[in-house]
Amino acid sequence: MGHGAGGILMDELIGRMKGILGSTYLGQGLDSALLPPVTGSLAFTTDSFVVRPLFFPGGDIGKLAVCGTVNDLSVVGARPLYLSSALILEEGLPLETLDRIVFSIAEAAREAHVEIVTGDTKVVEKGRGDGVYIATSGVGALREGLDLSGRLAAEGDALIVSGRLGDHAMTVLGLRESLGFDSGLASDCAPLNGMIAALLESGAAPVFMRDLTRGGLAAALCELAALRGLELEIDEEALPVRDEVRALGELLGIDVLTMANEGKLLAVLPAPAAESALAALRAHPLGREARIVGRVLAERSAGTAGGSVRMRTASGGLRRVTRPYAEKLPRIC
Amino acid sequence: MGHGAGGILMDELIGRMKGILGSTYLGQGLDSALLPPVTGSLAFTTDSFVVRPLFFPGGDIGKLAVCGTVNDLSVVGARPLYLSSALILEEGLPLETLDRIVFSIAEAAREAHVEIVTGDTKVVEKGRGDGVYIATSGVGALREGLDLSGRLAAEGDALIVSGRLGDHAMTVLGLRESLGFDSGLASDCAPLNGMIAALLESGAAPVFMRDLTRGGLAAALCELAALRGLELEIDEEALPVRDEVRALGELLGIDVLTMANEGKLLAVLPAPAAESALAALRAHPLGREARIVGRVLAERSAGTAGGSVRMRTASGGLRRVTRPYAEKLPRIC
Repeated sequence: MGHGAGGILMDELIGRMKGILGSTYLGQGLDSALLPPVTGSLAFTTDSFVVRPLFFPGGDIGKLAVCGTVNDLSVVGARPLYLSSALILEEGLPLETLDRIVFSIAEAAREAHVEIVTGDTKVVEKGRGDGVYIATSGVGALREGLDLSGRLAAEGDALIVSGRLGDHAMTVLGLRESLGFDSGLASDCAPLNGMIAALLESGAAPVFMRDLTRGGLAAALCELAALRGLELEIDEEALPVRDEVRALGELLGIDVLTMANEGKLLAVLPAPAAESALAALRAHPLGREARIVGRVLAERSAGTAGGSVRMRTASGGLRRVTRPYAEKLPRIC
Repeated sequence: MGHGAGGILMDELIGRMKGILGSTYLGQGLDSALLPPVTGSLAFTTDSFVVRPLFFPGGDIGKLAVCGTVNDLSVVGARPLYLSSALILEEGLPLETLDRIVFSIAEAAREAHVEIVTGDTKVVEKGRGDGVYIATSGVGALREGLDLSGRLAAEGDALIVSGRLGDHAMTVLGLRESLGFDSGLASDCAPLNGMIAALLESGAAPVFMRDLTRGGLAAALCELAALRGLELEIDEEALPVRDEVRALGELLGIDVLTMANEGKLLAVLPAPAAESALAALRAHPLGREARIVGRVLAERSAGTAGGSVRMRTASGGLRRVTRPYAEKLPRIC
């Protein structure tokens, strides 16, 4: 508890973390980081991370926090620049565990070419937290001339998914005490800004992008459909899903469409641009498995509420895709 | 738990909070808020809030979160503009309690003329949190031509405190189950940006500012002293402290210098400017009790490590002021 109380002990803890993160701006030692001007409009986002367990194949809460914030900035068309990190530590957390997580934050930030510029640490009593919770915020510079609002989505547009669905959700679920299976899977946790930059630099002009976290592909599609009363159709056989993930989902009664991902993108593009966009995605290491999974079937008049999403199933039927009411996977991120 | 899992239930919860906060930017419904360009350098800060109990005379965790972030931006010389808010809710938290806190966030944001532009909500199991934790981040526009780094602090400079010390710490402590006394006090929790703007617009050019939160006045003075190896002296009789706070501190063995405040400023100014700065502070409702509490006694050469802070006590002696090692008041903010 002493590490959180604003004294010398807290300074030592913060100094230790600054050493690992090695940021110039953290070194300012001020209540706020002082940053160079950002040209143009800003993007600003925040997320808290409460994933359980803290470590999993493919990542940990630290990597997840950096990637989640980088991705939230990237899908609105911004270049992520600066991140903040606020840690809520549970009393008794081994310092080695904290170090591992902070190292992971530093490594993910390097990978994503962003800098952790400001932070905060609080400590709560044993039994009032769960090891570590992390809240990250991010500031990015918005690219000019993009309209990713979905306003321009039109009949015939292609729905592209950047890779295999459900790996993160099934990896984390497999580690839960209550289930405990060895899935052999790894989380897809990754920063998407590099891949999205490659997509945009290829000349592709997506009309909508989302990273497929809580709520999965279903949530992103339903959101798009509802925005403009669109009818969307996806093809089950086109969905990139590992056999193990599909099998586990069936076993556990969890729809792969609602499974959280931490390094997957939905991009919606006019059909004529779809193939070149797909090529740009596939040329990036994170987008090798990118696929067109469906299309905008019809536009209703802009004011129409609702919209709908349906899936052509492998057996040839049609199934309505809805947002989960309350997903079965709490604390997945 | 269902409220945190990315489904319809979560949308309902978030919609409810957006309604209370009533921000245009939250209404964008994107993964990041898209904000107009900010002229000049940026200030960016983050803090998490784990105060116990959630509600106290003078404020609550919501007001505290907004004020803390506004103040961290203000003391580096920035105009606070945009805030984010990430909530970690403990399963079973009554929605009425959440509403009260979100109302309080909205009211504090209005008072401070900032806007909550983006947010996030997670839910953790009962016994893995403590009602609500809040992490806020803030973006501000840096004023030109200020050097608040302490670099310019010089012999003779006045140390000014904007009002009575220790009210927040003693108010919160009085509510703890383990102690439970009726202090009759209220937290000083307040946004300092208005008062700091008034100070700067008066023509005052402070060389150092800090809001006196965790670690209190002692931490801020020791930080300044250490920056340039300064010798600082404060006068115990000049410190604005309520009798009740002083008495409680003595009873509980807590030094008023280390008590956390949530609406108090330390400003360091050249002596000739001190009286007019004091007048500017006193003209503001939050600075009526502002006082010169001490001065910079001597500068050692810039490279000298350490520095020192001493207090001329009421009984005429001299006492060394040090940073607390691990303060006695965990979860004070």
